[in-house]
Amino acid sequence: MISFENDYAEGAHEAILKRLMETNLEQLSGYGSDPYCESAKEKIRRACGCPAAEIHFLVGGTQTNATVIEALLKNYEGVVSAGTGHVNCHEAGAIEHTGHKVLTVGQHAGKIDPADLEQYLKNFYEDENREHMVFPGMVYISHPTEYGTLYSREELEKLSEICRRYQMPLYLDGARLGYGLMSPETDVTLQDIARYCDVFYIGGTKVGAFCGEAVVFPRKNAPKYFMTTVKQQGALLAKGRLLGIQFDTLFTDGLYFEISRHAIDMARKLKRCFADKGYEFYLESPTNQQFVILDNGKMEELKKELKFSFWEKLDENHTVVRFATSWATREEDIRSLERLL
Amino acid sequence: MISFENDYAEGAHEAILKRLMETNLEQLSGYGSDPYCESAKEKIRRACGCPAAEIHFLVGGTQTNATVIEALLKNYEGVVSAGTGHVNCHEAGAIEHTGHKVLTVGQHAGKIDPADLEQYLKNFYEDENREHMVFPGMVYISHPTEYGTLYSREELEKLSEICRRYQMPLYLDGARLGYGLMSPETDVTLQDIARYCDVFYIGGTKVGAFCGEAVVFPRKNAPKYFMTTVKQQGALLAKGRLLGIQFDTLFTDGLYFEISRHAIDMARKLKRCFADKGYEFYLESPTNQQFVILDNGKMEELKKELKFSFWEKLDENHTVVRFATSWATREEDIRSLERLL
Amino acid sequence: MISFENDYAEGAHEAILKRLMETNLEQLSGYGSDPYCESAKEKIRRACGCPAAEIHFLVGGTQTNATVIEALLKNYEGVVSAGTGHVNCHEAGAIEHTGHKVLTVGQHAGKIDPADLEQYLKNFYEDENREHMVFPGMVYISHPTEYGTLYSREELEKLSEICRRYQMPLYLDGARLGYGLMSPETDVTLQDIARYCDVFYIGGTKVGAFCGEAVVFPRKNAPKYFMTTVKQQGALLAKGRLLGIQFDTLFTDGLYFEISRHAIDMARKLKRCFADKGYEFYLESPTNQQFVILDNGKMEELKKELKFSFWEKLDENHTVVRFATSWATREEDIRSLERLL
Amino acid sequence: MISFENDYAEGAHEAILKRLMETNLEQLSGYGSDPYCESAKEKIRRACGCPAAEIHFLVGGTQTNATVIEALLKNYEGVVSAGTGHVNCHEAGAIEHTGHKVLTVGQHAGKIDPADLEQYLKNFYEDENREHMVFPGMVYISHPTEYGTLYSREELEKLSEICRRYQMPLYLDGARLGYGLMSPETDVTLQDIARYCDVFYIGGTKVGAFCGEAVVFPRKNAPKYFMTTVKQQGALLAKGRLLGIQFDTLFTDGLYFEISRHAIDMARKLKRCFADKGYEFYLESPTNQQFVILDNGKMEELKKELKFSFWEKLDENHTVVRFATSWATREEDIRSLERLL
Repeated sequence: MISFENDYAEGAHEAILKRLMETNLEQLSGYGSDPYCESAKEKIRRACGCPAAEIHFLVGGTQTNATVIEALLKNYEGVVSAGTGHVNCHEAGAIEHTGHKVLTVGQHAGKIDPADLEQYLKNFYEDENREHMVFPGMVYISHPTEYGTLYSREELEKLSEICRRYQMPLYLDGARLGYGLMSPETDVTLQDIARYCDVFYIGGTKVGAFCGEAVVFPRKNAPKYFMTTVKQQGALLAKGRLLGIQFDTLFTDGLYFEISRHAIDMARKLKRCFADKGYEFYLESPTNQQFVILDNGKMEELKKELKFSFWEKLDENHTVVRFATSWATREEDIRSLERLL
Repeated sequence: MISFENDYAEGAHEAILKRLMETNLEQLSGYGSDPYCESAKEKIRRACGCPAAEIHFLVGGTQTNATVIEALLKNYEGVVSAGTGHVNCHEAGAIEHTGHKVLTVGQHAGKIDPADLEQYLKNFYEDENREHMVFPGMVYISHPTEYGTLYSREELEKLSEICRRYQMPLYLDGARLGYGLMSPETDVTLQDIARYCDVFYIGGTKVGAFCGEAVVFPRKNAPKYFMTTVKQQGALLAKGRLLGIQFDTLFTDGLYFEISRHAIDMARKLKRCFADKGYEFYLESPTNQQFVILDNGKMEELKKELKFSFWEKLDENHTVVRFATSWATREEDIRSLERLL
Repeated sequence: MISFENDYAEGAHEAILKRLMETNLEQLSGYGSDPYCESAKEKIRRACGCPAAEIHFLVGGTQTNATVIEALLKNYEGVVSAGTGHVNCHEAGAIEHTGHKVLTVGQHAGKIDPADLEQYLKNFYEDENREHMVFPGMVYISHPTEYGTLYSREELEKLSEICRRYQMPLYLDGARLGYGLMSPETDVTLQDIARYCDVFYIGGTKVGAFCGEAVVFPRKNAPKYFMTTVKQQGALLAKGRLLGIQFDTLFTDGLYFEISRHAIDMARKLKRCFADKGYEFYLESPTNQQFVILDNGKMEELKKELKFSFWEKLDENHTVVRFATSWATREEDIRSLERLL
Repeated sequence: MISFENDYAEGAHEAILKRLMETNLEQLSGYGSDPYCESAKEKIRRACGCPAAEIHFLVGGTQTNATVIEALLKNYEGVVSAGTGHVNCHEAGAIEHTGHKVLTVGQHAGKIDPADLEQYLKNFYEDENREHMVFPGMVYISHPTEYGTLYSREELEKLSEICRRYQMPLYLDGARLGYGLMSPETDVTLQDIARYCDVFYIGGTKVGAFCGEAVVFPRKNAPKYFMTTVKQQGALLAKGRLLGIQFDTLFTDGLYFEISRHAIDMARKLKRCFADKGYEFYLESPTNQQFVILDNGKMEELKKELKFSFWEKLDENHTVVRFATSWATREEDIRSLERLL
């Protein structure tokens, strides 16, 4: 059965496996202090245009979000997120587990509208009772969002300007960052992200690695002893090489971007398959996740041949489902899909 | 330079890499629900003699300790540990981060003496002010300990008996469990551990895997929704296959035990090298970590050719250092060491 | 200046002061083990119709909420609250500080609609990804709510039935419980609350005491070692007598109910003053908090003579303000208000 | 029966009760913003010789410790305490509940030796693995200690110097501060404490108040939004007047010092009673807590007539018990004791 269930169904890109084999018996020091980590960091610094960036490799997304958010917030602060933000919905309370509230603002196809953020902050600082409330201490956005949507450069710039005015870090969850950067519909570059955000992560798990997320503090602005926070969170890998080698490979000769572009190409073809057959989309996504409205009969029929994700019930007779492509999606999978539809 | 610095200096056993390659493009479901995880669990159940065991794969040791301990303790309880326990010393406060105190009892070469534990509990329950104190909610031991030492079966049995009497789970940190089980000086089997403990983990990171620890609840006694606790702790790997395949390989045809025995063989040869030259040991370790007393001049000399770990200053002129062997230590490394001494 | 700003502007009812004086030099044991605490508990048990109730005296509302919620939730659970619930809005993140998420459902004049709760739980348990989410572990309601509104007996019964079906405790925040029970518009008695809830608190701070909230577990169903949780939360008063004597006085000869009724009488007169002059109310409140819509000019004018609370801006020209009566409100204050309007 | 069980057996000093009566019906604003709080703060500032001091009133000791410690520590830091420190032993894990480890150093009659602290810090910063450990972020001392002992001015100065060199706040728990300041054997004044410490609290609960502790940041150095941390901890009293009026009374005309001196006078007489009869003391305490060694037969005999606290078993036949005097101890109680011995 062909799977469009998610973007982490396969192992790792073969170039990664090859490097893991080649380096396997080298004796390296632990906890991220090996030369592969260093090389990977240097390549990421170059890709971001940030020679002073501080970079840490963590293992997974929820872990990264909890670690970064805890490290940046003071005890009386919370993190502002869209209601649909991953930190608010699908992390089993990992943020609250660190003692911090997720403060939600309305979402627009998964995104925070800068005007909403501004209003939220204005209301908060005008409230006479604000000292009885959780202070907004940072802003969390995902890009692509949980709905596959993207911020424009102008939106990012506005969010960044608001955050700086209120002295709040802007944090971007880039679990699927490659797929965002390679969308033909974006005007946002990796350098833009490094410029507008105070911290972000470049996702590996969903873009060709076995595991791994690269946290980037673009202006040598990591909180003091961030590594200890990582350790405390249980996120410090003894064999840091596993992360270093993977990111070093992904950022050699533009592999990360190349495989991301492939996923986007596949997504566009997939989208066309559905559009050509008259299917409707729940929303317009320019990245590798496509949200298709299926009537329930058709959904059951397709389930026999394809794997995809349930997203939500639209009405009694229709369901929103998600089809995801990835670095590993094959042209022939798309052709099979076309035939099935 | 030859390294005896630790037991995680190399990548993964080649059989693991081979399996990762072979399975790489299979599309598998995430979060530990793939067939390799299932197969690995079944093999571990058999090795433990526990057909009903519940098994979860986590990524690293500190993470595993924090997750298991939080899942088992009530909010008013703490975990009893030897003062030298990893959870007390080298986890950057990961346990306290979950809100729980580490309650220390005296250590004897890294171990808890059952009599000390009994006395501690007796004193606690006799104290009129105990409701103003942290209740002992579980016992943490490591085996091998941080000093490479091992509990005897009788000691484990006694600890277990005390814990059951006080209705406290006994948890064994097996980061280096293989090296303990394969020591010729132990009378403790994996089945014994499963019998005496309420939960334990079989370490992968230090015994041939890139990463991974297998948490075993031997009698289907995992706390409800343990997977959600794992997720909340940021310890749930999206590509659970990475852990499943590694443990499946390690528990196929006894590989885990075989490579552990190799490390022990190497450790015994290493020990003999030092003993033959008249070096003294800080304590008697029957496993893969050997704690050697060096005079400081000799230490500096050896540092030029060898990597090993500083452990502690013994006096002005002598230092305790640790030499560790592993599944990857080569006979020729031992021979080189012998020549150097 | 006359104040209708809140219901905690004065000290304590004079009967309380009198008892504090009379008992002042008695030497009593600490931490709630004195005979006044015991007597108060017995009187509360009788008032609730719950001879087996376990009762604990805490100092303030936020503290009580955090303590009860932490004691009842498992680590992977959160508390369900109306979006307007005090625990969600005005406790500076005290709940999240204990590691738990506040899960919000829609509010209707401050209340949770049983149908909304049912739907929320249904959706949760149908969601395939629920193990990646925070489990709803208990339900928090306030009665009167933050908007002065009240649940009907039927609504409480339905909420209780849902909670029991899902095995979740129902917790009622009774910071202003007296004012709810004495409203002529309620059909809910204290015994009803004890029957339908698994835990609730009877507020003292806002109903005539200097401080103090009585937590009632009506069926001897307090979590084990609840006193230790109270201590851990910093909520255990050394001189527990201060709380015991206050509650003993309030529950002697129905004082708690009598002074609550007085506040309700005052609120009804206050309400009539506004209604007679054609003022509109933001919502219909049957208790001691009245939410009046003022045009901004009138508001500024009244501010010169009266104290009341800003609630929220209604539109450019109108503001919602809160007038609160209490056990200490005097008839002459109402007459002064009438003259001013 | 006469009680020397503790120093919180009675209610409040009568001057406090009188002021509570006089002010009872004044309508005051809440949460510590009333004029009595302001007046009390001003008097404390003068007593401390710190015109810029920031002062907050909290309710109890454990609560105060948890709130101050959490507010001052970064997430990766712990608090250094003597092993016998209240925060380490008798707060039911309130510090760990905020996510922070209590790091213990050896104790000498309840005190931290500056040399031990220096050595601890030196070792920590020399340890290559320190990033895997909890960073010492502040130092906690109690004065008088849990054993009634006192730091000398020189010791305080040294602790302060070490803390400043390592940029760690020095925090003094003054639950019984009055009894320390009024001991004829001390050379430490309140102004000294304000000079050497970065934050401390002046205990009310054990020195004549119903409840209340005054946290002093002597150089306007409170952490930002400390009030929100207080709220989050559940430690913000709605009727802040209860604390303000008590401290205002205690710091009017030196009442706090006068009643503390009385307790010390009583303690000296009590001590002489025991000494004259040949009783031995467990240690030399210059304050209101006296630790007497009783043979078990005598202990049982005295229990029939007197209340005192069990402290610890000394050997099979002897027990250490604590006799405490307080602001409320009467001369006649001492005379009765003398007769009994």
